[in-house]
Amino acid sequence: MGDKRILLAHGSGGKFSHQLIDELIIKNLGNPILNALDDSAVLNKRKLAFTTDSFVVEPLFFPGGDIGKLAVFGTVNDLSMVGAKPLSLSLSFIIEEGFPLNDLERIILSIKKACQVAKVKVVTGDTKVVEKGKADKIFINTAGIGMIKKYLSARGVKPGDEIILSGNLGDHSIAILQARGNFNFKTKLKSDLAPLSELVEIILDSGMDIHCFRDPTRGGLATILNEVAQVSDLGIEIEEEKIPICEEVKGVCEMLGFDPLYLANEGKLVAFSNPKDAQQLLKLMRKHKYGRKASLIGEVTPSPKGKVLLKTRIGGKRILDLLSGEQLPRIC
Amino acid sequence: MGDKRILLAHGSGGKFSHQLIDELIIKNLGNPILNALDDSAVLNKRKLAFTTDSFVVEPLFFPGGDIGKLAVFGTVNDLSMVGAKPLSLSLSFIIEEGFPLNDLERIILSIKKACQVAKVKVVTGDTKVVEKGKADKIFINTAGIGMIKKYLSARGVKPGDEIILSGNLGDHSIAILQARGNFNFKTKLKSDLAPLSELVEIILDSGMDIHCFRDPTRGGLATILNEVAQVSDLGIEIEEEKIPICEEVKGVCEMLGFDPLYLANEGKLVAFSNPKDAQQLLKLMRKHKYGRKASLIGEVTPSPKGKVLLKTRIGGKRILDLLSGEQLPRIC
Repeated sequence: MGDKRILLAHGSGGKFSHQLIDELIIKNLGNPILNALDDSAVLNKRKLAFTTDSFVVEPLFFPGGDIGKLAVFGTVNDLSMVGAKPLSLSLSFIIEEGFPLNDLERIILSIKKACQVAKVKVVTGDTKVVEKGKADKIFINTAGIGMIKKYLSARGVKPGDEIILSGNLGDHSIAILQARGNFNFKTKLKSDLAPLSELVEIILDSGMDIHCFRDPTRGGLATILNEVAQVSDLGIEIEEEKIPICEEVKGVCEMLGFDPLYLANEGKLVAFSNPKDAQQLLKLMRKHKYGRKASLIGEVTPSPKGKVLLKTRIGGKRILDLLSGEQLPRIC
Repeated sequence: MGDKRILLAHGSGGKFSHQLIDELIIKNLGNPILNALDDSAVLNKRKLAFTTDSFVVEPLFFPGGDIGKLAVFGTVNDLSMVGAKPLSLSLSFIIEEGFPLNDLERIILSIKKACQVAKVKVVTGDTKVVEKGKADKIFINTAGIGMIKKYLSARGVKPGDEIILSGNLGDHSIAILQARGNFNFKTKLKSDLAPLSELVEIILDSGMDIHCFRDPTRGGLATILNEVAQVSDLGIEIEEEKIPICEEVKGVCEMLGFDPLYLANEGKLVAFSNPKDAQQLLKLMRKHKYGRKASLIGEVTPSPKGKVLLKTRIGGKRILDLLSGEQLPRIC
């Protein structure tokens, strides 16, 4: 490692994150379950899903949510993505000395409400306090356990699969950025933060032939498509003009030079469907409040293996790579 | 909550921690599983144990261990305490920008070794990076899943149960304190950090009638005895002179005014045993490397309900209460 140091980009979900995971984590701690690198680990003869996330979002409260709601729905969604019904959460706080108890109460009440909405329970927890200046207000870790209804993995993706995105990209990232007071203008944007468990359950119960779900959080749509292409050893081709992005996000991205395909979302899913069911799936998703703007954005191709191609609006094709560097630290 | 703020004492494991858990967490998120307040949640018809802990120990490397080994064994031990065989861990890092990759590698190699020793696997994980100055080097969260062999809980404790402590108290806390460079003298003390899973398995396999295990970590022996007394609604009486403490810990405690009964341990357990099996259990524990200095320290009494009495060396009795305030922040 020499005298190399951790960069913000190591937490981006992009190239540096993948490098860190490959060269330090998988190399030393790897095993078949961990190496699958799905949104949740799959245990106990594919009956149990297990996942974890730490949340360091800044600011703690933002339009559409807060760190507590994010911690619950973030973990609920990771369980949903492998086809599991989320059941039990752990909840662990690292709090900076001097943090207002009122804010902690507000976060806990938000967690309570989020648990009710997502039908999960906090069953175990931990609280640590560090001296003033040794953490930034509060960090939350949630781990979650779910029971698998239908096991889904990026390894189940097949050539010809149609790719459906459940709605607009980028709302979460831009809402956070705005809450930081970085703009001298105001939009009405809210984070898309939402639990995807109900939508996933409806899709699974429909009996349609779904091969994989992913939620495009940190690193955005481009990152999860690259992950699926790499794990499945297939190609992916998507069409820029089919990707739903609202005017406000488009505007901010153009102004600040962000690519919306790399922005984090917290209430969206991408479904890889057997082509025979794709149109019906699209209809089903559009009936649900978290899928109203669902769109068929592309398909899985036999080649180029492990790569994602973007058909641009002007008709060209370019490789959509993993993010290098970091667009927006502490987005979740 | 008014304008109250989080104090270091809220992370002590003592009175303030209990108050925070009762008034904010249990009040708002409570359910029968969480409310049991055992070292792990017990799920799925008492088949599955689930626990979490965040680790903020300072310094990261200390005699006898480091934050990585602590994160693995801490969670392994919490699973063991409810009678479970630890199986799968999640591993989540919050890292400060600029943290040396060499140190991260050293921590991950230590996690690798600890997982091998405790026979558990890391199956899922997460890495977040925050800006320089927004966290203190590195924090780790581990959650763990285990399969329950024999379900144990503080609610299973009965009047007449004999209480056995597996070895010396206080080594971990004093080793950490020394590593901070707070003394102008040196001891040979090392943290007692160890996985208790094998010792627990041997005890459970012996068929002896054990009613409860607890590990006296943050808040120490006094805290876990108070927790057991409260949950079981029984009294506990222990004898000061039977509690094993090494000379060096005794010396440091006398000099600095610490009470060793409140010091954290990371490789000790307290067993509550049917009196008919207590002598045999003591023998069995003394044969194991992590139980060599096991000692019968007291018993469970029908009253005073919810209280712990300490018979002092000079023959008096005093109530041993929960810690108020904080002796040593960031001990784990």
